[in-house]
Amino acid sequence: MIDAYLREKRTLVEQTLDQHLPPADTAPSIIHEAMRYAVLGGGKRVRPILAIAAAEACGADVTPLLPSFAALELIHTYSLVHDDLPALDDDDLRRGRKTTHVVYGEAMGILAGDALLTEAFSWLAKPIEGLDPARQLRAVALVARAVDSTGMIGGQVADLEAEGAKPTREALEFIHRNKTGRLITASVLLGGTLGGANDRQLLVLERYGVALGLAFQIVDDLLDQEESSATLGKTAGKDVAQGKLTYPALMGVDAARAELASLLATALNNAGMIAGPLNYLGDIARFICDRRS
Amino acid sequence: MIDAYLREKRTLVEQTLDQHLPPADTAPSIIHEAMRYAVLGGGKRVRPILAIAAAEACGADVTPLLPSFAALELIHTYSLVHDDLPALDDDDLRRGRKTTHVVYGEAMGILAGDALLTEAFSWLAKPIEGLDPARQLRAVALVARAVDSTGMIGGQVADLEAEGAKPTREALEFIHRNKTGRLITASVLLGGTLGGANDRQLLVLERYGVALGLAFQIVDDLLDQEESSATLGKTAGKDVAQGKLTYPALMGVDAARAELASLLATALNNAGMIAGPLNYLGDIARFICDRRS
Repeated sequence: MIDAYLREKRTLVEQTLDQHLPPADTAPSIIHEAMRYAVLGGGKRVRPILAIAAAEACGADVTPLLPSFAALELIHTYSLVHDDLPALDDDDLRRGRKTTHVVYGEAMGILAGDALLTEAFSWLAKPIEGLDPARQLRAVALVARAVDSTGMIGGQVADLEAEGAKPTREALEFIHRNKTGRLITASVLLGGTLGGANDRQLLVLERYGVALGLAFQIVDDLLDQEESSATLGKTAGKDVAQGKLTYPALMGVDAARAELASLLATALNNAGMIAGPLNYLGDIARFICDRRS
Repeated sequence: MIDAYLREKRTLVEQTLDQHLPPADTAPSIIHEAMRYAVLGGGKRVRPILAIAAAEACGADVTPLLPSFAALELIHTYSLVHDDLPALDDDDLRRGRKTTHVVYGEAMGILAGDALLTEAFSWLAKPIEGLDPARQLRAVALVARAVDSTGMIGGQVADLEAEGAKPTREALEFIHRNKTGRLITASVLLGGTLGGANDRQLLVLERYGVALGLAFQIVDDLLDQEESSATLGKTAGKDVAQGKLTYPALMGVDAARAELASLLATALNNAGMIAGPLNYLGDIARFICDRRS
């Protein structure tokens, strides 16, 4: 059931990305090839799907909202393209394929990432017919704040600074809350905001999104430690090898699993408070916490 | 007269930047120090001042619009920080100071640039009291499109591709229209849009902005060839040394000067068509074309 839902929505997101990204032959073609290579090379499309599910749970028709939701995937992809650069994580493999800078060169890796971030705001700010412009403007602002220097980028900076440092729970929580969590939470809130959520619903969605964001990162950490590179489609065991701060490294695998269970319970509890007839938020939370890649 | 105007507005822009950028001690402090170093190290603030002048020419009170206009400087600065990186132009000197990645490292150069671009959209999307949200949303979209992979970033890509290639006037015009021109034009249009311009005024402002954008780049090219590094505060003669395509290299200095005079005439002509009582657009155009740094 949830598999079919996720498959259907993933197809919808990928069609939206393919249709709205500039064609590969748009001048200068090299950057449009690089952008398409980075974005259209697979991925779970978790963030846009969360936005879709949140909007549906609030009773919205998501069709006109799809470009805004797909913009979340552009932002996620830009962050991966830049994180993979030699000056940062220096990773050659992502989703089972060569990383963007390995294929197109470092300059194009930097510029394609810049272009994806810019494109995302272009999609988010494109007026949506029938939607209150004030609401849409609030939506653009909430996404921008989530990925700024105190949000997603701040988390990445703290992660770099923590490499090889003495791990503290405080530092770890800052990294997790921001590096992965903020964009996940913002995805849920974007879905709610554009989907017409009222203030009470937005509050519930925020609690759901915060719990899910932390859960998502704990699962990532556990998988990095437990799974093979082949299953993950990226270099496994790299966090530990680089001396990165992770939940299992700090508190042990059992405590990390207990934390995960508690976060899932919070997510499920809040997902149940959105009373719409079409509500996959709980199923998605379960899927994210159970995933093996 | 124009000197006093530019000085006053530049102070206003710098105060806005200083007040709205996250304080240097905001966690993680290293990126906020880097962002402030990059943005607050001087600069002519041409883009925000053009937006201010356009809004004033349309009769607007610019005070509530200043953060939106200052966001243009964040975008301009992010583009400089990334262009200066080793994988791109590899420049150590900018505005007479060490470039951001030289001081803070390459990783922080990449991330601080990302954060400045993100911050810009955060400022642009923050609801402005008393302003029609539909108008503000259009303003966010117009800036995003101007600096995307078919705009400013596209110009930078074409510039990289043209290095050492056989120069054509077509390639040069693509680079100039996009790399510098698009954000200059967008600055004028942002001022008009948020300043309440009607459709006729926006058309006139666009013609003014396009002419000024091209003029600005021609002046840059001429200065690179003629002035010393000390006057420019950046490495002079670098375009020629790197085999970059420039107007004087392609058509000679005299023809470049004639083109510049023609563009200035277009800018002045259109500036005169905005009938507001406070109109510095013509004076600014003259100043830009006469500048020596």
